[in-house]
Parts: sequence; structure tokens; C-alpha cells
Amino acid sequence: MPECGGKNRVVQDQPKKNDLTPFFEPEGVAVIGSFKEGVFGGYVVVKSLLEAGYKGNIYPVNPGNYKEVLGLKVYASPQAIPGKVELALLMINARYVPGVIKTCGDAGIQSIILVADGFAERDAQGAKLQEEVVQLARSLGIRIIGPNTAGIANAMNGFNPCPYDAGYYRFKKGTVSICSQTGMINPQAYAYRDLNYGINKICDFGNKCDLDECDFLEYVENDAHTQVVSVYVESVKDGKRFLDVCKRVSPKKPILLLKLGSTEEGARASASHTGSLAMDDKVFDAACRQVGVLRLDQFSEMFEMPRFFASQPLPKGNRFGMVSYTGAVGVAALDEGARHGLVRAPLSNKTSRMLEDLFPGLGHVPVDIGPMIPSVKDFSLVYTKILTSVINDENVDCLFNVVWADGNGRNTKAYVEGYEALKENNHKPVATWVYGPNINVRRDLKKSLERLGFPVFAEPEQCIKALGLAYRYSSLRQEKTSL
Amino acid sequence: MPECGGKNRVVQDQPKKNDLTPFFEPEGVAVIGSFKEGVFGGYVVVKSLLEAGYKGNIYPVNPGNYKEVLGLKVYASPQAIPGKVELALLMINARYVPGVIKTCGDAGIQSIILVADGFAERDAQGAKLQEEVVQLARSLGIRIIGPNTAGIANAMNGFNPCPYDAGYYRFKKGTVSICSQTGMINPQAYAYRDLNYGINKICDFGNKCDLDECDFLEYVENDAHTQVVSVYVESVKDGKRFLDVCKRVSPKKPILLLKLGSTEEGARASASHTGSLAMDDKVFDAACRQVGVLRLDQFSEMFEMPRFFASQPLPKGNRFGMVSYTGAVGVAALDEGARHGLVRAPLSNKTSRMLEDLFPGLGHVPVDIGPMIPSVKDFSLVYTKILTSVINDENVDCLFNVVWADGNGRNTKAYVEGYEALKENNHKPVATWVYGPNINVRRDLKKSLERLGFPVFAEPEQCIKALGLAYRYSSLRQEKTSL
Repeated sequence: MPECGGKNRVVQDQPKKNDLTPFFEPEGVAVIGSFKEGVFGGYVVVKSLLEAGYKGNIYPVNPGNYKEVLGLKVYASPQAIPGKVELALLMINARYVPGVIKTCGDAGIQSIILVADGFAERDAQGAKLQEEVVQLARSLGIRIIGPNTAGIANAMNGFNPCPYDAGYYRFKKGTVSICSQTGMINPQAYAYRDLNYGINKICDFGNKCDLDECDFLEYVENDAHTQVVSVYVESVKDGKRFLDVCKRVSPKKPILLLKLGSTEEGARASASHTGSLAMDDKVFDAACRQVGVLRLDQFSEMFEMPRFFASQPLPKGNRFGMVSYTGAVGVAALDEGARHGLVRAPLSNKTSRMLEDLFPGLGHVPVDIGPMIPSVKDFSLVYTKILTSVINDENVDCLFNVVWADGNGRNTKAYVEGYEALKENNHKPVATWVYGPNINVRRDLKKSLERLGFPVFAEPEQCIKALGLAYRYSSLRQEKTSL
Repeated sequence: MPECGGKNRVVQDQPKKNDLTPFFEPEGVAVIGSFKEGVFGGYVVVKSLLEAGYKGNIYPVNPGNYKEVLGLKVYASPQAIPGKVELALLMINARYVPGVIKTCGDAGIQSIILVADGFAERDAQGAKLQEEVVQLARSLGIRIIGPNTAGIANAMNGFNPCPYDAGYYRFKKGTVSICSQTGMINPQAYAYRDLNYGINKICDFGNKCDLDECDFLEYVENDAHTQVVSVYVESVKDGKRFLDVCKRVSPKKPILLLKLGSTEEGARASASHTGSLAMDDKVFDAACRQVGVLRLDQFSEMFEMPRFFASQPLPKGNRFGMVSYTGAVGVAALDEGARHGLVRAPLSNKTSRMLEDLFPGLGHVPVDIGPMIPSVKDFSLVYTKILTSVINDENVDCLFNVVWADGNGRNTKAYVEGYEALKENNHKPVATWVYGPNINVRRDLKKSLERLGFPVFAEPEQCIKALGLAYRYSSLRQEKTSL
């Protein structure tokens, strides 16, 4: 083993300005903190990286008495690390951060995730320390994610250095990437393992003292694995840059944005929680519309909406077909649809006649199959026929499908067969709501349909919102193309 | 056994006008329809009544070849029934309905649930038939719920004549009653058995050809078992009566209302689905405010919001305390709170100092315990101390509590102990959101807290909305009292 100290310092290649590659795809990572077993800290990060299957080199760093953690040698300082290290994670007390950043600089590490808190989000003294850290990092050519962050995760290469023990470490690969200024999107807060769909990259920018959502958007712009990106912000540091980046990225990949802190009270809370400033929401909203950003309203939509984009084709128009068991949800869909620019599809005469022949009253949207159910002989056959004829109708651009999971799961097979038929020619988006008297039957059916690639939403209103956002995005893109 | 025919006709006491008692508490019920085993119809109703523990007499009626169903004798006509019958359920083809109503009248039955569909919701011919039925019923002194209804359920006496097989028949008794013009609230559509809280009475009025939500409100007004009522309408037949009834009932029991069909498109769909007319939503909204009705926005709120009223005391003011693991949800709460007239509680100096002594930065709302977690020794003790000191603060009127269920359920015990302490002196309302990386841990914790009587919501925004509605209701009631 090489000696500790500056002699073995490996100078890394200078990263491209704002390029997040060293953060998401490092060949080697230094984990600087305590390695005491527990639910937070360096030990958890090393465990998470090992369990998640990260193939790069992990270098635990601690100047104290640790010799080894989980079979890995602990180094006394970043400079003591023998191999290539692009990234360091700092989980240390705020007051030691400047000193450790210097040693990282000496070791040629130019990317730092500052998990440590106690900066601008805490008090004036913390804000001063944060500014000091930024100046120091700048002078050393070091880029920072954080401070006050739960960090990042990359499902593609198992690089999941989660500082909190989530109880799981791997999750499905997908094409949805998410960034935020809160750890609410990180694996310890959200049950990614339990989802029936995949996630690509996650980044909590915390206090955003240096890198932020703009850098993330530029990074995923050219990331072949990301199809859609979800962003949570309370404030935007550089409005012009944010809008420029969104304008450039949004025609390539849908950008879904949740911005909170829009009320005076909320803005004040945001200032104390990440030390940042907010702006007038109406101005912001108008600007977002101009650059093609799709705004969200609730936390859950950060996860629910992008997966719709990731799995479904875009609609060519705003006419939604609907198959349902209940007239009331039809009414809700029309109310909600009107808010999102969607209209009820007028079925063609051919489809309408065919449906009326199946059962009187069936030949218009919403296609209410409820009254028909008690008298149907071969439900599976009839159901597939209804679904495919509605979605293939020339007047239908997308489908809102309401599925009643009966208490004993008798119809599950028929539904799955219907969706298998939809999947064979999945040229129009389908949003699905499953309801019914038994949560286990519902959950199993949801899983089956999501495995076929069709997202099932928790509320009917979310289905319509997803179709509405997809329609809006589709229109925006058509406008761009026709210019 | 008595002979069939008119001789054994038992003339019932004339029910009080609009009194729904015979519908929810009949001593005897005639179930008129097919008794073929299946997922819908008379067989299912009889099965559901037997399984739900209904102690009244069940009289299956069918003029065909059935002799017995599930051990009960089948009668050829309502007149053939030997005992007292207040109520008949009709699950027959629409065209036979007038004839059977006449025989019910002859048998002295004055309350009918018309499950049958094919009336005003179907077409012009159905609308004509419905009008005919109404005139006939009126001439015979018969009151009708329906047509096109999934009927009613009463958890208090096991009277659950569900026409669709829900796969379960009993559910917990509670104090929330729900009515609608859709079967989406009935046991075959909603998983009442899987809830951690109870329901009292359910009524789907379907096409509302006779009785409607006004009658339900008048019924529950004096129902000692109902504390809060949730109502879904697409249209209101008699606006003046509706407002008069709401004005009278709302100071006694909170009325939560979901009204859809407010857009032109939605109204048209409503007309085709229940054959009714809608009205201008802005006018309706203003009227609702005047009479103290609390409006809802989504289907799920029909169930989520009333249970909050049923389990929590009303807040005395609009200042919410908040204990959380995450600053971002604090920002969301302030944004959402501003929409509902809630403000962040300014903690008293005493509470603030105590919290700051526990951990620096803890002494203000939102009380963010996230940074403290890694360094806490006895979490259980500290957690209970934080929760109780915040809720007991003189400046706090209600509590929004955000609970992080860690991946391994390590903290579950501490949370339960904290809530046990809250329960000991439950004088202010608490709305809880549980998040975390493992859905099983989350579900178990939710169950534990709900068993202690504290509702856990699926989204943080719902918590704030529940507190906001409770505050609004509390203010309305204080106004009434001070008049």
C-alpha cells in the first residue's frame, strides 16, 4: 500500500464545466465521515454502494481509529487514496467542511457531495460558512452538490450512496430522472423498490450553493437513459439560465416541475429551510408556459406523472375515449378534462354501432359497461373487443380506462387479456384507474397492468391530469416542429 | 304457511313523509328479482343480508320456479309474504317495474329501492317510464330510492342489501354517513372492510326520481349514530330545499359536499348518466358557503375528509403546529395552508426554548427533527416530548405531523408511544402523513396510528386540507353560536 500523504495524490482530469458525469458515474468515490454502524453516515453509504452493485472503487476516509469498514480499507485522508477518485461525499460536522474541502482539492478531487447540514438553512452563521465554502471550492475548481442534501442515486450503475439506511439499496432501472432541493425524492424517503416501474437518476441539490436543477437538466438533456425529468424547486437562482435551459431541453424531454414556496408564508419557510429566495409565482408560471415546462401541484405527482410519459406514447390530439363502470367518474373526467383542454371523443358511427349492438346505450363516451355486466356471457372476449374498438377509433386520441376489480378477482384475467391486446399496438396513451372492494385484488391487478407497461393511478383525477399533460406536451412539440 | 294472495296482505303504518327509517331499519324486507347464483341480483342481496348479520325478516320474491334461496322460502308475490314488510328491493327489468310497484302497493309496502336501471339515464323512452313510475308511486303513497342505484347499507344493524357481490358483507361501525347519486360509495366499489375506521350509513340515490340527498340530510340530522355526512351530487332538484336543509343541518353536523358536473361537458354527461340537470357552479358555490357546506374536490375526499371530523376535535383557531422530518413538506404546508386560511403557529417562548435546548434550530414551526435524528439517544422519549410540547403550546390550534417510517420499522414503537401520549389528552386535532421507503412498514404504522384514532392521509396536501376544513367548520359554528 502507498504511504499516506500528498505524494500519492492523483490529479484528475478537469471535469467539463457543470458536467454532472463525475457525480453520477465516478470510477472512484471517497466517503468521508464516521463509519460507526447506524442508520446514517459513512457506514450506511458504503453498505448501500456495496449492496447496490456499484462497480467503482469505494474509499472510506476517516482520520481516526477505523481500519476497515465492511471489508474495505479506511484511509486517513483523501490524499492517501491510491486510485482515481472523481467524487467525495462529505458527512462531517459543518465546521470541518472547509478544511476537508482543501484536502480534497489537494487530492485532485473536483466533485463533492456535501451531505453535511448546518449551513444557510440553519442560521446567519451557517450562511456565512456556506459562502466561505463556495468561495473556497471555486478557487480550487471544485463543484458542489449540497450542502444539506441526501445526495444522488443512479439506478443504471448501482451508484446509490444513500446516507440514510433505506432498508433496500437496488431499484428497477427506468427512464424517469428526478431532481429537487429536498431529500423527499431520495431512496430513504420514497419506496422505489416497491414500484412497478423504474427510475433512472435522482439528485437532491439541497441548499444549491453551487450546482442546481439547471445543471441536472443539461446533464439529462444528453443522457440517453433519461426520457423524462421531474424537478422540485422552491426557488430558482438564475431565472434567465433556468428558462434558457428549459427552452432548449423541453422539446427533447418533457420537464415536469413542482414549485412550492409560492405563497409569502411558503417562501419564508423555504428561505429558512434551504437558505434561498423565492419569486412571484404568477411571473414564474407565465415564464414556464413560454418555455414548455409542465407544472405539477402535489408531491405525489413528481413520481406519478413522469412515469406516464416514460411508458405511454404521446396523444395526437385532445379527444379522450373512456371505458368505465360508472357514470359519475365520467362526469368527473369531463370536469377535469375541461381544465386540461381535453374533450370527450365523439366515437365514429362504425364504433358506436358496434358497441350499441353489443349492448344498448354503450355507443358513446363514456362507454359505461356497468349495466351490461350482469348479462355478459364471455366477459373476456367482450371486454377486449370494447377496449380495442374504442382505442382504435379514428376520433379517439387517448384512453381513460376505469377498471372495477371485483371483490374476488374474477375479472382480473379478462382485464389482463384486454391490456395485452392494447399492448400489441400501443399507439395511443392509456391512463388507468382501478377501484373495487378489496385492496389486495386491486393491488394485484395494478401490478399486472403495470408489468404490461400501463400506469395505474391512485385517483381518477390523476388519470385525466396525466392525459392532459401529455396532450399539452404533444401540442408544444408539434408547435416547435412546425416552426 | 298462509295462502298466497291478497288475503294475507299486511297494511304497514304510513311512514312519516320523507322519513328514511323504513329504508335503513326495516323489520322486514322483500327482495324481488332473480335468485340465480351470480355476482349480481337477488341471490347476492340475500347472501349479503345474511352474512352482514341483519336480524330482520328477509322475504325473497319471485313468481317463477324458485322455492328456496339460501334456506329462505321464496314467495310468488309481495302479497304472499306473511310478515311485516316495510321495504322492497326491485332488481327486475325496467319494463316490469310499474306492475311490480302496484303489487307492492297492494301488499302495503311503501318504501322501494329501485336497483333496476334503464330509466332516465338510458334514453327518452326510459325517462318516460321513470316519470310513469314516479306518478304511480305517488298515487300509492310509495317512496322510492333510485332507480339506477346500488342501494344502501347500514353498518349499525347489518342491513347491507348490496346487489353486487363485494366479497365482504360486514364493515366497522363508525359515525360517518355518505350519500351520493352514484354507486361509487357502495360496498362493491369501495374497500370498507379494509379501512381502519368505521362507516355508519350509505345511500346511493341513483337517478333521484323521488327521494334524494335532502331527505338523507334530514334523516341523519336526528340520527344519533351519524356525526358527519359526506354528499356527492351532480345536480340538485330543488335548490331552495337543499339550501334550507343544509343551513339547518350544518351547524349540527358537518356536511362535506362533492359536486361534479360543473363544466358544460360534465353537466351534459351527468344528464345522460342520471337524467338530471346541473346548475351554474359559481352560483352554487356561493350558496354553499352561505349555508355552511364544505366543498370537496376529489372522489377520495368523500371518504378521507369526513373521517377526520369523526375522529378529531375541532380546532379553536387557524394556527397550525407542525413536526416534520423535511423542510420541503413544511413549505408545501404553508402554501396549502394559505389556501385554507391556516397560518403557521408562532410557538411560545417557553416551547421554543425547550425545543432549542433539545437541538439547535428546533424551536420554530415547522419543527424539523430531521437534522437531530442521527444524534438522538432515546428517540422515543424525545419524540413524545416534542409532540406533546408542540400540541400543548398555547399558540397552537392544531397539528400537522409528518412521520418518517424508516425502512426497518425501528421507530414505529416511538411513534406509537408519541401518539398514545397525544391520545391521553386529545383536545386539538392532529392530521398525520406517513412516508418512507417501505410500503409494508408504512402500512403497519398507519394501521397502528389509526387504531389509536388518528387518521393518516395518503398525501401531505390532504392533511392540510383536512385541518383547513375543520378550521372553517369550527369558525362557522362559532359564528352561529355567537349570533
